[in-house]
Amino acid sequence: MTRLDATGTAREGGTADTERRGDPVTTANQHTVVDDTSVSALLERGRRLATPMLRAAVARLAPPMDTVAAYHFGWIDAEGRPSESDGGKAVRPALALLSAEAAGAPPETGLPGAVAVELVHNFSLLHDDLMDGDEQRRHRDTVWKVHGPAQAILVGDALFALANEILLEPATVEAGRATRRLTRATRKLIDGQAQDISYEDRDRVTVEECLEMEGNKTGALLACAVSIGAVLAGADDRTADALESYGYHLGLAFQAVDDLLGIWGDPQATGKQTWSDLRQRKKSLPVVAALSSPHPAAARLADLMAADAKKSQAEFKDFDEAEFATRAALIDEAGGREWTSQEAQRQHTTALAALEPVDMPGHVRDQLTALADFVVVRQR
Amino acid sequence: MTRLDATGTAREGGTADTERRGDPVTTANQHTVVDDTSVSALLERGRRLATPMLRAAVARLAPPMDTVAAYHFGWIDAEGRPSESDGGKAVRPALALLSAEAAGAPPETGLPGAVAVELVHNFSLLHDDLMDGDEQRRHRDTVWKVHGPAQAILVGDALFALANEILLEPATVEAGRATRRLTRATRKLIDGQAQDISYEDRDRVTVEECLEMEGNKTGALLACAVSIGAVLAGADDRTADALESYGYHLGLAFQAVDDLLGIWGDPQATGKQTWSDLRQRKKSLPVVAALSSPHPAAARLADLMAADAKKSQAEFKDFDEAEFATRAALIDEAGGREWTSQEAQRQHTTALAALEPVDMPGHVRDQLTALADFVVVRQR
Repeated sequence: MTRLDATGTAREGGTADTERRGDPVTTANQHTVVDDTSVSALLERGRRLATPMLRAAVARLAPPMDTVAAYHFGWIDAEGRPSESDGGKAVRPALALLSAEAAGAPPETGLPGAVAVELVHNFSLLHDDLMDGDEQRRHRDTVWKVHGPAQAILVGDALFALANEILLEPATVEAGRATRRLTRATRKLIDGQAQDISYEDRDRVTVEECLEMEGNKTGALLACAVSIGAVLAGADDRTADALESYGYHLGLAFQAVDDLLGIWGDPQATGKQTWSDLRQRKKSLPVVAALSSPHPAAARLADLMAADAKKSQAEFKDFDEAEFATRAALIDEAGGREWTSQEAQRQHTTALAALEPVDMPGHVRDQLTALADFVVVRQR
Repeated sequence: MTRLDATGTAREGGTADTERRGDPVTTANQHTVVDDTSVSALLERGRRLATPMLRAAVARLAPPMDTVAAYHFGWIDAEGRPSESDGGKAVRPALALLSAEAAGAPPETGLPGAVAVELVHNFSLLHDDLMDGDEQRRHRDTVWKVHGPAQAILVGDALFALANEILLEPATVEAGRATRRLTRATRKLIDGQAQDISYEDRDRVTVEECLEMEGNKTGALLACAVSIGAVLAGADDRTADALESYGYHLGLAFQAVDDLLGIWGDPQATGKQTWSDLRQRKKSLPVVAALSSPHPAAARLADLMAADAKKSQAEFKDFDEAEFATRAALIDEAGGREWTSQEAQRQHTTALAALEPVDMPGHVRDQLTALADFVVVRQR
């Protein structure tokens, strides 16, 4: 049993390691020891099983959408040459396969669900990157930067449609149920992005509103991933709902960590700019938690942010690094970082509790537990 | 029996009326007499039955997407005040209801299909207007002009997801079959838009490529509309496929007329700018047909277009009206207008032939025939 360090590689070690600087979730996970062998194997299996079907699905797209999608997934570079770029963690396909196993079926039963969920996830990345003006993802230029906004819109649409196509291909009752759940999750995903955008223009967002937005934006699709395989395997709604609940809280834990990485993450590891979320004036969890604190740093932060809000996006993005560092320090001082770390742990606990009543093979439960642990300690 | 004139109002009259200037399809439809009472009643019924469910569906969207969608549908104005704007012809919902009747069911059986197809159609309008930079639709500013590009993307996505949600709500085998057909149509819709965009950058597009693109972009969803009600009513695949074939060719007839209106349409009637498709350098049917002609005007047109292609979009859009008039005259002279008129008639004939083997109530067949006639003579 080893612990993942800041670069994602395994290190032997006990709780002392968790004290080092730069680990965004250090304060709350001093007891977490992750079985990274199991998690790496799980993610690797997800990629290995899902990638051929994902590539075959993408190959159905009319040119040039097939090429644009292949660039997005990291299979080719901007010039169209084969590439072995980082295609993301592929947590969702791994979960969908494990989900089928949770219902006693072989992992392959969850395959159409794994591919469909991954397609919906990437549809949302393509559109969100454009809407948010994000220029980098996974250390590479985003699709709209390389291929233009129209292709980002179009290929996003195509991946969304493809997800339903793949899932509905077998004309079974289970396929219909799975598509219904995926559609519900996709609607929540879109609601979440709408909330995210509207919060950026508001002076004040509550912690509850932020959690609702993150539940929609991240929780819903992870919830779908971890139940869709079971649904395809014929599991009843009670089992599927319990798995969904695990996935939803796993998503909230994941997002809390993402919010920490969005401010204090290592750009080398995350592939994003320094202070990424601060540059975008995102009302992420550490920010809203800090602003709701009685600490004097909260008032200073609120004053700075009120002034920031009057600036143009371009003017704000060109801030000196020190300006962002000041804001990050105030968020930390007001307790926003600590609260978010603890929130990640609370969601982790709730996620695991949701699994308790579900009857499933022991090795599946172990892997779902290891994955929840991994999500909380990840650095990218 | 009356004939629709250029503003869409009914006029008594014989073939002499069709000789007037400004009617883009005059040359080919001298024998067409449309039962506009039947078509108006059909479209009106479609709107009356589908609008409450459509409004209820849109009301599910999280703010501000519900408001943005309501603006798009013409239910409110840009300031949020109730409005009675033109929400489009609503041909697709009318077809979906008629489709249920074709299978011997009451029109209401097709209602979820009518709403789903209309949602997908409007998803594509929202995204296409943004990708194409179209500033006006139905005499009003487009959503991206009023609410910004992010809302146009987001609300388009939401309408797409909502379409599947509505259709899959009853957990029936028919709902699954209908969603499978809608998904296939949506994928073609997206393929068609991809082809449309890529053709704009190419020197030469063949008539066949243009027809394929238009079949994807317009034919596929009309085909889905006219079969989805029958599918929901439990019709077999043979019947659904025959109805699809009618709808596909109806769509190609519709699009041929659209291409004529896109160059020679009356801006007062269409709600678009003069020479709308020429301004966008669209390789529409009249253009590609003209370019493939041996007439000397084709060579002059090709020379002008080669020079046009070197200009920036802004530079080109600011052309003097006379420049567009010259190009339109050359297209006409080379036979592009005549060929497209005849193509509309050919597709009209093929559409009606597809219905022949289908056993359906006589009044349904009459209405499908009247609708096909209407599509070919419409002026907006």
